[in-house]
Amino acid sequence: MPSHPLDTFFSPKSIAIIGASREPTKIPGLLLAFLRKNQFPGAIYPVNPNYEDINGLTCYPKIAAIGQPIDLAIVIIPAKFVTGALEECAAVGVKNVVIISSGFAEEGGDSAGMQDEIGAIARRTGMRISGPNAEGFYNEPGRIAATFSPTVDVKPDAPRLIASRRRIGIVAQSGGIGFAFYNRARALGVAVSYVISTGNESDLGAGEFLDYLVQDTSTDVILLFIEGIRDTDKFLAAAQRAAELGKPVIVTKVGRSSAGERAAASHTASMAGWSAAYDAVFAKYGFIVSNDLDEAVAIAAVLTTSPLPKGDRVAVVTVSGGAGIWAADTVAMQDMNVPELSAGVQQTIRGMIPSYGSPRNPVDITAQAVHSGGLQKTMELLEKSDEVDAVLVVISMASETRMPFKMEELKPLIDRQTKPYVFWSYTLPSNFARTGLAASGVVILSNLSHVGTAIRQLGTYARFKPPADASSAQAADLSKFTSAQAFSEYDSKALLRAAGVDVPQDMLVAECGAVEAAAAKTRFPLVMKIQSADIPHKSEVGGVKVGIANLQDALAAYDALIASARQHRPNAKIQGVLVSPVARKGVEMIVGTMTDATFGPMIMAGLGGVTTELFKDVVYRPAPVSEAEAAAMLDELKAAPLLNGFRGAPKADVAALTALMAKLSQVAAANSAHIAEIEINPVLVHPAGEGVTIVDALVVAR
Amino acid sequence: MPSHPLDTFFSPKSIAIIGASREPTKIPGLLLAFLRKNQFPGAIYPVNPNYEDINGLTCYPKIAAIGQPIDLAIVIIPAKFVTGALEECAAVGVKNVVIISSGFAEEGGDSAGMQDEIGAIARRTGMRISGPNAEGFYNEPGRIAATFSPTVDVKPDAPRLIASRRRIGIVAQSGGIGFAFYNRARALGVAVSYVISTGNESDLGAGEFLDYLVQDTSTDVILLFIEGIRDTDKFLAAAQRAAELGKPVIVTKVGRSSAGERAAASHTASMAGWSAAYDAVFAKYGFIVSNDLDEAVAIAAVLTTSPLPKGDRVAVVTVSGGAGIWAADTVAMQDMNVPELSAGVQQTIRGMIPSYGSPRNPVDITAQAVHSGGLQKTMELLEKSDEVDAVLVVISMASETRMPFKMEELKPLIDRQTKPYVFWSYTLPSNFARTGLAASGVVILSNLSHVGTAIRQLGTYARFKPPADASSAQAADLSKFTSAQAFSEYDSKALLRAAGVDVPQDMLVAECGAVEAAAAKTRFPLVMKIQSADIPHKSEVGGVKVGIANLQDALAAYDALIASARQHRPNAKIQGVLVSPVARKGVEMIVGTMTDATFGPMIMAGLGGVTTELFKDVVYRPAPVSEAEAAAMLDELKAAPLLNGFRGAPKADVAALTALMAKLSQVAAANSAHIAEIEINPVLVHPAGEGVTIVDALVVAR
Repeated sequence: MPSHPLDTFFSPKSIAIIGASREPTKIPGLLLAFLRKNQFPGAIYPVNPNYEDINGLTCYPKIAAIGQPIDLAIVIIPAKFVTGALEECAAVGVKNVVIISSGFAEEGGDSAGMQDEIGAIARRTGMRISGPNAEGFYNEPGRIAATFSPTVDVKPDAPRLIASRRRIGIVAQSGGIGFAFYNRARALGVAVSYVISTGNESDLGAGEFLDYLVQDTSTDVILLFIEGIRDTDKFLAAAQRAAELGKPVIVTKVGRSSAGERAAASHTASMAGWSAAYDAVFAKYGFIVSNDLDEAVAIAAVLTTSPLPKGDRVAVVTVSGGAGIWAADTVAMQDMNVPELSAGVQQTIRGMIPSYGSPRNPVDITAQAVHSGGLQKTMELLEKSDEVDAVLVVISMASETRMPFKMEELKPLIDRQTKPYVFWSYTLPSNFARTGLAASGVVILSNLSHVGTAIRQLGTYARFKPPADASSAQAADLSKFTSAQAFSEYDSKALLRAAGVDVPQDMLVAECGAVEAAAAKTRFPLVMKIQSADIPHKSEVGGVKVGIANLQDALAAYDALIASARQHRPNAKIQGVLVSPVARKGVEMIVGTMTDATFGPMIMAGLGGVTTELFKDVVYRPAPVSEAEAAAMLDELKAAPLLNGFRGAPKADVAALTALMAKLSQVAAANSAHIAEIEINPVLVHPAGEGVTIVDALVVAR
Repeated sequence: MPSHPLDTFFSPKSIAIIGASREPTKIPGLLLAFLRKNQFPGAIYPVNPNYEDINGLTCYPKIAAIGQPIDLAIVIIPAKFVTGALEECAAVGVKNVVIISSGFAEEGGDSAGMQDEIGAIARRTGMRISGPNAEGFYNEPGRIAATFSPTVDVKPDAPRLIASRRRIGIVAQSGGIGFAFYNRARALGVAVSYVISTGNESDLGAGEFLDYLVQDTSTDVILLFIEGIRDTDKFLAAAQRAAELGKPVIVTKVGRSSAGERAAASHTASMAGWSAAYDAVFAKYGFIVSNDLDEAVAIAAVLTTSPLPKGDRVAVVTVSGGAGIWAADTVAMQDMNVPELSAGVQQTIRGMIPSYGSPRNPVDITAQAVHSGGLQKTMELLEKSDEVDAVLVVISMASETRMPFKMEELKPLIDRQTKPYVFWSYTLPSNFARTGLAASGVVILSNLSHVGTAIRQLGTYARFKPPADASSAQAADLSKFTSAQAFSEYDSKALLRAAGVDVPQDMLVAECGAVEAAAAKTRFPLVMKIQSADIPHKSEVGGVKVGIANLQDALAAYDALIASARQHRPNAKIQGVLVSPVARKGVEMIVGTMTDATFGPMIMAGLGGVTTELFKDVVYRPAPVSEAEAAAMLDELKAAPLLNGFRGAPKADVAALTALMAKLSQVAAANSAHIAEIEINPVLVHPAGEGVTIVDALVVAR
């Protein structure tokens, strides 16, 4: 592994504990106790002017008294003394600091100011600082417990259950949750590289920690718990790198509800932000989103024990009929396939199971066949078969004395597995079973829904391809448009046209006398719309007339539109009236861009009309997107079938729509300093080969 | 408790084991061993001609040799000997039998015939029979383990963790799953009355067992696992009784996917059926549907430990900021309310927690305040407060040595609780914690999603009202209509009109010369539709013309419709052409009825157009329904806002729509022998007070 600037942070040779204590039940005391219990192999320097020694270790009155190089200082003293201690650390060349102390930005007021000072010290001195308000970190392979989390309060020589050959690394913007992930992964027998609690992120942030785990060769799968990202650029770079390396990231984002958002603001002073933007970013980089602690750990467990599947066909092998049916349902409801096995395979299985079993899939070998080795033989058969891509073994592992496998035969089978084997116990697995199967590299899962999700997520991840750079080399110069403060539809369409978007040429009419000429160039029936940069929502002022069938009606419409606008918005500067033909029919879509406070410009698409709002059927991605990404977005819509020839309708021109989305996303990305939003609502998608028609457009300046 | 015919089944004073064995690891041996280990207080009579005694018990060569009254015989002999044994049982007056033996209907062929014989013996002799292919039952309070499930393989004198004051009873159409529910409930400390595995249900079925638990006063909450109901009438009667008694039933229905359905057919030879009909029945009786084993048990745990909430406002009290945010999100995403607490309550809480905590809700008391008693004080405050209806306590219970509560204070608080307290541990709860809190009547849950679901389900159940009888006293005599084999739209509308449904009077025109007269009575534009009982789907034959603006077009349309029908369906008997005005605008809905193989006539409603299919936004109930039930159905639609004044539109005439639904459901229920389906598609729902218009209707004969 190439060296990394944070190596001395995570694998320090020496640690000072500033504020160390003899009290074994309070946080300062726990920090020292856990460091020693976990057998930290380096030097420990307690710092506290009140003691000469603590539990046999020399205790120093101040940092400067240590006189040895210090890779990491753990700070646990009252908030108001922290910056002073940091200055002392910097003065003697301490490389890294974890601040456990609370009472900074999460309190607001002056305390937030103290946190700003901490960040400034880091920037000024180059000393890297994690926290404040952090729970520290745990480096499991290195046995470095720089945390007071009770989950690392190990009993000396207690065996650590390890079933997975691969390791997960955990980055969490909540120490409680980060170590809860660890606690649960450990119980399942999943190996762990690092558990990192990020605290208030005055200097080191979740993005930089993520980057550390992405490049760390001892970390194979990453679990990420986010309230709100602060070091966005580092986060995005790490995400891109993880995608390119094929290192799976399982992410939980909280602060999605208003109560959660309110709490996140209090907790670590992070802005939870707009969660749709987070989900868009996660989708872009192939992050596996899980909103459940056990589910996230279950997905991690499967990723650390199984190869990725080559397809979506799952065999369910069960010792209980009812449990097998439930498993088949669960897998099928995750849109995977539980195919009936071929006659040949069924024939072979028939020979291994009682007459009242079933070889079809689910394969019900019955409880009886377990004892005659039928379970393992069936698994071997399915391993070789090209009819399935993954095997879900459904079994009861509650026994404290009996094992349903011949262990000497199971291990070689697992060692040479070419497809995922996932084990679900419908009873709670016993320690006996967990320990016994761990020796063969098997993690037993106990929640069926999570098993189903994990298998699906494995398949989805297997199909994921890292995003190519979608930014356009030659962006059009829109400076003469983007200097405007506000845009009418006419202005918006002009801007888009200049950017290279294909927008129909409507006619702007600035006086009633010009209506006839405009109408002559446009086919009846007409649509006429008031134009003013001061009236973004035209229908609110009665500013739209449709189905205008003749010149007489058009003239009347002009006068009515102007009069209505003057009445509703006396101060609006009126540009005129836009005259357009009624567009050809097509599937009505909405496409737009907006600017997220954390991640910048985003592109969205949804079905037009009431359905987008009613069924919340919209999809977002960070801009820019390629046409391929745009197509992937459309596939995520529940309404996607409407574009693909629903109920015998012609297929829609999806290529034209994705080209528009890609183009629009580039315009938004290249002009993010000036453009806050673009809304194209609706765009009509005509049958394949016939393109799209932008009916209405609105650009909102930043 | 009043006596019940099945009392001797579940609480036998004497048990014969037919096929008892000395082999301790095989099923016949396990049955005897578990019965004795659990200290069955009555007489046990092993029957097996090969032994004189088994483990100190006299073994009888045949049933007749016992010479004592036998309340229950457990049969575990090869399938082909079972009916013979049953005849012997009946001859000596055995009251009840559980057949464990497999190899009957689940094998098909001759074996299925043997099962029919078993049912016949039960009916002929009055002896009640459970199974075959059953895993038996467990009566926990009575210590009667009439099962070979390893989950009742108790260690003598091992303490049983009991936290709940109330008990759950379990009925399962899979022994494996039934006892897995037991296994998991037991681990959480939830008390259990009965675990009942129903097997192949040759005589006693899930419905009758459900009824037993509904009337059983030792059972407070019921867990039900269903593959397919066979004794439908008993099931529905039990469901109605449970609803009236307010005894919650948590139900899992499997066989929902095609693979699951295939497996259910193999497993216990049950037809999984159409799961929407099951869900409709569950909804009618207020059953709590859960498709997850742990979730179902978590809901049961909360129901057996908490009162029902009076509203949907939840306080989250947490020791970890991140975990509290996650909990708030989870609760909010279940459509519950996590309101910010009032200034006064916040002020009081402020005094109990550190400055870096938060009193807003989630109430982050911080880990520090646990030690100073802040957790319990906050809980007491919220118990008294009228600002919240339930309290979710978020805590880490992993410690094997430390308890975050003062137990002597917690128990009184729980004992007098007037609102639900639900405890979630983000780390895995230790045995120490489980045992300690069980003494106070607290069950610790470890999955947050299930906590969220459980609280929501509690609230939903609290609001549920048992359905009133919706069948109509005076059903119209439709015999002159229902004798038909097939119906045109015209016939269908005539039938509905005769049934008292308000259907617009269209004009049927049987010759071109009559078009003018019909048009004169109808306002242009017209809709014209071919009518033939042989053409149920008119648009498939080009049989619909809309927007006909004048007489000339109407005459042409008549000829075109007839010609097109003759061309597409030369053998169809043509009735004529239906002439209708274009209906006034309204929200387009579909309402229909159909007949489910298990539950009979059902009523459905959905939004019209493509959305019903695209977003699967339909809702069903068993027919008949009252108008109130119909209104509850509409509320379940995602599209419900469209009826309630979406985006400034007028509110639709929901009262007229529910009246139509109730009426239609009564017609379907009263005529289920003759009518298989009624489809009203679309019905237009006009603004409130303006009624509905049935545009098209089709009755399908049975």
